Amino acid sequence: MPYTLDETVDGAFDDVVARTEAALADEEFGVLCDIDIQAAFAEKLDVEFRQYRILGACNPAFAKQALEEELRLGALLPCNVIVYETDGGNVGVSAVDPGKLLSVVDNPELDAVADDVRERFERVLDELAA
Amino acid sequence: MPYTLDETVDGAFDDVVARTEAALADEEFGVLCDIDIQAAFAEKLDVEFRQYRILGACNPAFAKQALEEELRLGALLPCNVIVYETDGGNVGVSAVDPGKLLSVVDNPELDAVADDVRERFERVLDELAA
Repeated sequence: MPYTLDETVDGAFDDVVARTEAALADEEFGVLCDIDIQAAFAEKLDVEFRQYRILGACNPAFAKQALEEELRLGALLPCNVIVYETDGGNVGVSAVDPGKLLSVVDNPELDAVADDVRERFERVLDELAA
Repeated sequence: MPYTLDETVDGAFDDVVARTEAALADEEFGVLCDIDIQAAFAEKLDVEFRQYRILGACNPAFAKQALEEELRLGALLPCNVIVYETDGGNVGVSAVDPGKLLSVVDNPELDAVADDVRERFERVLDELAA
């Protein structure tokens, strides 16, 4: 079972990032963290790398529910959605599969919220592909 | 098998956060992302929550090696170290166990870097407990 939900999207890289953030907002996810891997590698390693962004998506109500159930779950949060240049020159968008991610936590009380987040991420990817 | 490496640390919350960042820097991890859960919940949900920070720790050289091996691995990065008030009124520090996290990725080429990161996180926690 893969650990991400994946879509390939037409369009310019920065536009896809903006559309991803908007689609996440429609599903009530804010982006709490935005890491520009290309810029980080250029600055820290002085190397070129493909365009690659890590968006840390968080629905605060879900996060609170999950942290009250499992205090240390923050070690696995937020749920990332990555936007990256593919080898074929397209733009890929992949969201972590919350069910797969939470498989490392032995707590079935989290299954419902994982399912809900997964459905929302699937709608985000469908929206981007439309 | 737990999914975090855990330590309970003496001291004031903000001091423990600062010491954690310093110990991570000693192991060549920068903090690319710092999420204040208490502040986020107060702002977004208007609720009180314990002090809780999610530090997204990244060693750029390891991250590059891992992403070149497994492009979509950014969905699981950076590796989080969380600092939080415990129920007992102490400060807990937990680092995600990189081996456990990467168990969702079926790629043995990542085992060596996971082991290295885990050893560094263990030294960070030992330093904080000292």
